Amino acid sequence: MRVAELSRRTGVAVPTIKYYLREGLLPPGELTSPNQARYSEEHVRRLKLVRALLDVGGLSVAAVREVLDTMANDDKSMFNVLGKVQHNLAGQLAATEGERQETASRIAHELIERHGWQIKPGSPPLASLITALATLIELHGEDLLELLDAYADASERVAEFDIEYTRRGADRADAVERMVIGTVVGDAILSALRRLAHENEAARRLTGG
Amino acid sequence: MRVAELSRRTGVAVPTIKYYLREGLLPPGELTSPNQARYSEEHVRRLKLVRALLDVGGLSVAAVREVLDTMANDDKSMFNVLGKVQHNLAGQLAATEGERQETASRIAHELIERHGWQIKPGSPPLASLITALATLIELHGEDLLELLDAYADASERVAEFDIEYTRRGADRADAVERMVIGTVVGDAILSALRRLAHENEAARRLTGG
Repeated sequence: MRVAELSRRTGVAVPTIKYYLREGLLPPGELTSPNQARYSEEHVRRLKLVRALLDVGGLSVAAVREVLDTMANDDKSMFNVLGKVQHNLAGQLAATEGERQETASRIAHELIERHGWQIKPGSPPLASLITALATLIELHGEDLLELLDAYADASERVAEFDIEYTRRGADRADAVERMVIGTVVGDAILSALRRLAHENEAARRLTGG
Repeated sequence: MRVAELSRRTGVAVPTIKYYLREGLLPPGELTSPNQARYSEEHVRRLKLVRALLDVGGLSVAAVREVLDTMANDDKSMFNVLGKVQHNLAGQLAATEGERQETASRIAHELIERHGWQIKPGSPPLASLITALATLIELHGEDLLELLDAYADASERVAEFDIEYTRRGADRADAVERMVIGTVVGDAILSALRRLAHENEAARRLTGG
């Protein structure tokens, strides 16, 4: 298909498609003349993935490129590819320093140990967790920390479903794509559902007495 | 305290504090001379909240100002204030159009009905949920939708703890602040925990056979 058809199929404007091509988010089409290229179903699929990562996931163009590069890497074991993609999707929060960071780090490691989780040192979401916990302690003492185990239990259950869904992929490329989509779009869905559940819980408590 | 002390106590640079004052994110200090103002513990607390919303929550300066304005509004009932603050925190995703959006809307409403949730029409997280579901359907058909009930169950359990924590506030202002912090920092914590749980679940399945 021509670029106009690719645009029509995906709802992405032609200048935007050309920008993604220049930025390497989309592989070049097959040249049919010096100024015209032909695009495939693979481009439709890739373009939809790029839009999901940018719009729903809120990733930067550079972060999307890194995720796509890692997804394309066939040299690594499946586990390594999944790990590296997750690494790029982590959206790691900047670390702070000082006493609160140390307290937060201790609390995070105790939580992981209590739940028996196998986590590599230097895991990016672990660093994000520690920073978020440090912010919480800074703002409100350690009061909210008793919610942590409930949060961890909920995350555990959700993760089992997520991994099951990833494993259902037709092949390795499909499995990696499922994980990327599940992580990014799944975050948006969970965030929306948690807010809806807040609204319901508040309404229930107010009307129920 | 002087602005230098406020900066030292919070780790926020003096020019940044002045920017927040100009943007209305921080109430003015008490003038002690035409060029000097005195700041209180209230400023320390507010400044930490502003940083959490900007850094951990990723909110824009305009969104933070709206949240703070709503928090300060004493005319409204507690329920209205909580609702409006949640409204501003929703980070609503832009709606898309077409058939997939309609399918996503139907799926979202059926989910809410199945779980017996009381949700007002026009709820911003409902709109975000519908857009995220439409993205998912666009990318991968309706395959992942069977995860939705597990996600909703997990959100329900988390929300019960969240609301309980909010209600423990010393007064109305404290309760609203707890909700703001719990929502924004809680999202960051849940996102990190879900990724850690993915890492653990993948490791467990690989090592466990």
